[in-house]
Amino acid sequence: MQARLRGIFPPVPTSFDAAGDVDVRAIAANVTRLMTTGLSGVLALGSNGEAASLDETESDRILAAVRGVVPASKVLIAGTGRESTRSTIDACRRAAAIGADVVLVRPPSYYKSQMTSDALVGHFRSVADASPAPVMLYNLPATGVTLTLPVVSTLAAHPNIVGLKETSPELERLGQFAEIGEGFRVLTGWAPVLLPALAMGAAGGILAVANVLPDQTVRLFDHAIAGRHTEALALQRGLTPIARLVSSVYGVAGLKAALDLAGFHGGPVRAPLLSVSDRERDDIARTLSAIPR
Amino acid sequence: MQARLRGIFPPVPTSFDAAGDVDVRAIAANVTRLMTTGLSGVLALGSNGEAASLDETESDRILAAVRGVVPASKVLIAGTGRESTRSTIDACRRAAAIGADVVLVRPPSYYKSQMTSDALVGHFRSVADASPAPVMLYNLPATGVTLTLPVVSTLAAHPNIVGLKETSPELERLGQFAEIGEGFRVLTGWAPVLLPALAMGAAGGILAVANVLPDQTVRLFDHAIAGRHTEALALQRGLTPIARLVSSVYGVAGLKAALDLAGFHGGPVRAPLLSVSDRERDDIARTLSAIPR
Amino acid sequence: MQARLRGIFPPVPTSFDAAGDVDVRAIAANVTRLMTTGLSGVLALGSNGEAASLDETESDRILAAVRGVVPASKVLIAGTGRESTRSTIDACRRAAAIGADVVLVRPPSYYKSQMTSDALVGHFRSVADASPAPVMLYNLPATGVTLTLPVVSTLAAHPNIVGLKETSPELERLGQFAEIGEGFRVLTGWAPVLLPALAMGAAGGILAVANVLPDQTVRLFDHAIAGRHTEALALQRGLTPIARLVSSVYGVAGLKAALDLAGFHGGPVRAPLLSVSDRERDDIARTLSAIPR
Amino acid sequence: MQARLRGIFPPVPTSFDAAGDVDVRAIAANVTRLMTTGLSGVLALGSNGEAASLDETESDRILAAVRGVVPASKVLIAGTGRESTRSTIDACRRAAAIGADVVLVRPPSYYKSQMTSDALVGHFRSVADASPAPVMLYNLPATGVTLTLPVVSTLAAHPNIVGLKETSPELERLGQFAEIGEGFRVLTGWAPVLLPALAMGAAGGILAVANVLPDQTVRLFDHAIAGRHTEALALQRGLTPIARLVSSVYGVAGLKAALDLAGFHGGPVRAPLLSVSDRERDDIARTLSAIPR
Repeated sequence: MQARLRGIFPPVPTSFDAAGDVDVRAIAANVTRLMTTGLSGVLALGSNGEAASLDETESDRILAAVRGVVPASKVLIAGTGRESTRSTIDACRRAAAIGADVVLVRPPSYYKSQMTSDALVGHFRSVADASPAPVMLYNLPATGVTLTLPVVSTLAAHPNIVGLKETSPELERLGQFAEIGEGFRVLTGWAPVLLPALAMGAAGGILAVANVLPDQTVRLFDHAIAGRHTEALALQRGLTPIARLVSSVYGVAGLKAALDLAGFHGGPVRAPLLSVSDRERDDIARTLSAIPR
Repeated sequence: MQARLRGIFPPVPTSFDAAGDVDVRAIAANVTRLMTTGLSGVLALGSNGEAASLDETESDRILAAVRGVVPASKVLIAGTGRESTRSTIDACRRAAAIGADVVLVRPPSYYKSQMTSDALVGHFRSVADASPAPVMLYNLPATGVTLTLPVVSTLAAHPNIVGLKETSPELERLGQFAEIGEGFRVLTGWAPVLLPALAMGAAGGILAVANVLPDQTVRLFDHAIAGRHTEALALQRGLTPIARLVSSVYGVAGLKAALDLAGFHGGPVRAPLLSVSDRERDDIARTLSAIPR
Repeated sequence: MQARLRGIFPPVPTSFDAAGDVDVRAIAANVTRLMTTGLSGVLALGSNGEAASLDETESDRILAAVRGVVPASKVLIAGTGRESTRSTIDACRRAAAIGADVVLVRPPSYYKSQMTSDALVGHFRSVADASPAPVMLYNLPATGVTLTLPVVSTLAAHPNIVGLKETSPELERLGQFAEIGEGFRVLTGWAPVLLPALAMGAAGGILAVANVLPDQTVRLFDHAIAGRHTEALALQRGLTPIARLVSSVYGVAGLKAALDLAGFHGGPVRAPLLSVSDRERDDIARTLSAIPR
Repeated sequence: MQARLRGIFPPVPTSFDAAGDVDVRAIAANVTRLMTTGLSGVLALGSNGEAASLDETESDRILAAVRGVVPASKVLIAGTGRESTRSTIDACRRAAAIGADVVLVRPPSYYKSQMTSDALVGHFRSVADASPAPVMLYNLPATGVTLTLPVVSTLAAHPNIVGLKETSPELERLGQFAEIGEGFRVLTGWAPVLLPALAMGAAGGILAVANVLPDQTVRLFDHAIAGRHTEALALQRGLTPIARLVSSVYGVAGLKAALDLAGFHGGPVRAPLLSVSDRERDDIARTLSAIPR
């Protein structure tokens, strides 16, 4: 599996209909179109998929719909992190049964002061022991829980743990994770540092902007890997402004607005998230139109 | 309702059996015993109830069991915060149907950078509009989302929002909340500052230590309210060390260990939480035995 | 000395003339007027005295001027913290020679990641050994270095360390410091929590707002100590809004604007600090005029 | 000047003799030896030079000694940041008079909550207007004050501001600074991310590890610039462990211990900093000896 965790993966958003219910047809339509590009696969049920706001039945329906349109040649990653170990294991089993190739598991974070190294190692080991699908760790320091090098090194030795997604602009830690070995793939989740992350040994990225501009994101990856540094840096600088708007600046609402502008299905977010304002939408439209295609 | 949100409320932990399943009989036994004291009521399904690690069915069973043993003269508060507005509303409706007198709602925190004042006001207003039971806000800055004075002042004007639990040692903000008015009750969730919180106008506390030492905690409240400052300060200083161990230091696992030592049902925590070590249990036992009864 | 570290002390600001030089006459005039009230003394060369922006010669001139107008019946505290141990000791010696009764020493904070407990204990012990004047510790968590209970307990045993100023709204830690013993006085530096700090055992406060409203601040202290809780809480609530504007909200510039409005010498701040805007000055004026005299 | 701000610069430490006084001969000896390598120049009076613990006279003596041994073909950068604008300007003038080619100015940080964008722009503009030597900004987020893109973009337009040192592992911000233009040079101060910083457009680095291993650090720079990515990544991974020990892990004390081990003059640190323990020194020795020369 490790060999296939390479390249660019969009974390697909969850479309909702006018009644606020999950719209699996819109999701499948987005993914179908994305799968005609050079993307290596997709992540369903990630943070950008508003996974925290979905119930278990909705999660399963979304994953099944995505599975139906991701070809076997591409990788389907499913977000299955939950707050308790037992519900995480349950989510991993269901995701594998539906056909996920890999599960991406964030650390529990509600009891963050109790998430010691021992607690985190215990949690991920239990999950990896029980999950039928290989496990990818998810480092998201913004939650208040950070996976450190000693924890990740210990976990990387588990035969069912295949890699890590690092969602931060901090590259010292990513560089240390990337050095663990060939059998442990590191993907960045922070598009504005895709190029330097690849320079540090990352194998690719799971990037919101890849939903909106899949071709350009893949091209940046290809240039970087091929050593065409001037072209890669120019593309990185071109993508960074819109990448920021659809992630750290406006979040999922910004991503959905950009999708609408780019001809995909974006649509509303689920409360408590709020849609972008008109001014924010204009900001996104202007930034998007400034990117050379 | 506001008049009854006064005094000391323990946030009751959730007991699990050897198989890791919810043990409603143990929970009911604990609450039954607590209800013979001067406590004003209980909180079920709070952070100390490991609510984040429970599924919806388990939550309902626990609440029903607690309802069965809390007399009408005492207040039953139920934790009903979820990450999405719609699942929070659903939890409030179910809790009210089971018989909760008040619902305690923490802010969503997964998308913390998007939890603007507008998003928080929108969330809590929707919840308060829909909840059959009066709503108490829950400020827990450790989650990374803090309810500020402007947000709380706005929400306090809603007829179905009756108060706020402030879980932090920071008393400037609590003092401002306590000044909002008689119709808006503020309870502290941080036992080491119960006395000064009362001095600032808090109406009481929701305190883990009250599960273990209900009589002493109620007595501290009574002394403080009656202006017996010397006795109150002595009691506060006596309770603070154990209060720290069962909350900020060892968390829910520490609370359950203390309950076992005090003759209540404590038992195991649910993973990823880890039970206390032998050394930590000794620390708790020693601290507990040093308290004058 | 400990017995005299009780009550309210204003941290006097440093006045500058139109050329930006220290104006010792204005400073002395302010202090002279303050010394006609019930204040217990003053702090010169604190954060509110813009000590970080003064050179050593200026510091000595200011201290001498203040000494000249503080009667022997009141306590003169001098801020003498520096980044190196040797320059801190030098500042303590000079302050004592000029006539300071007590020196207030903040922890070095430039190399904050290296300010381990051992480094802090070593620093303060060397300073206390060498200082001719008794030493008061200064806890200012906003600098990124926090004095913890183990460090403070260790240092409190030193015969030349007489107390601590805690500048934060966090009262759990203050409560623990206040419990150390009669020989170790704790003063709060956060006016919005003066009342609850006194409830926790603080001996008084070093408070910017006491420069502007000395009588009201002293009255709040007197009510609190005498157990007149209703009057004390009303005064606290009356003082908190202006206390916030002259400290956490607008800083030293806000304090100086308030002094100008109250008929003291305020004047300009030293760059990089900026004076308040007209809108901010109006905010201060409005808040000040709303306080019952 | 901008064209010469390229490559690797060590921030030279300040040697002290047994009495704790500055030892300019030891400093000059270190720099003399460093100047025989491919380094582009040196920084004197930086954080690693314990500038915060030096008085003005000591600072001038050190700078004069370093100037004496840095040839005209190399660049001498002097740290001149102070807490007030006027003392910063004074330090810049003295440094220029002594012969510094560039001055490196950190933001004031004591009044961090007042360091608004307006205050920072005002400070640096005043300094740049008055400084005879070109000014380099110093971003050191660990101080609690961060220079943001809008502030830096504004300042970069000043004719006497020539670049910025970014001391953090965060590469999104560095990438944005590096895009400002050819006339504004960005150097990284965080050795573990030298390679990816260069990939993002940095012109080089000011790196503690370059004091200890100048040849290897320069070689990493040369490989990276020449596009020899495999060799550069191998060197980066080889240098990162020791680079961490002499900066984020053990600080200046670790750097001085490593210098002693590498045959330079290291010696004691000035209190409150503490020398490394024997165990820490062994850690450094072991890590140093593992590096291929």
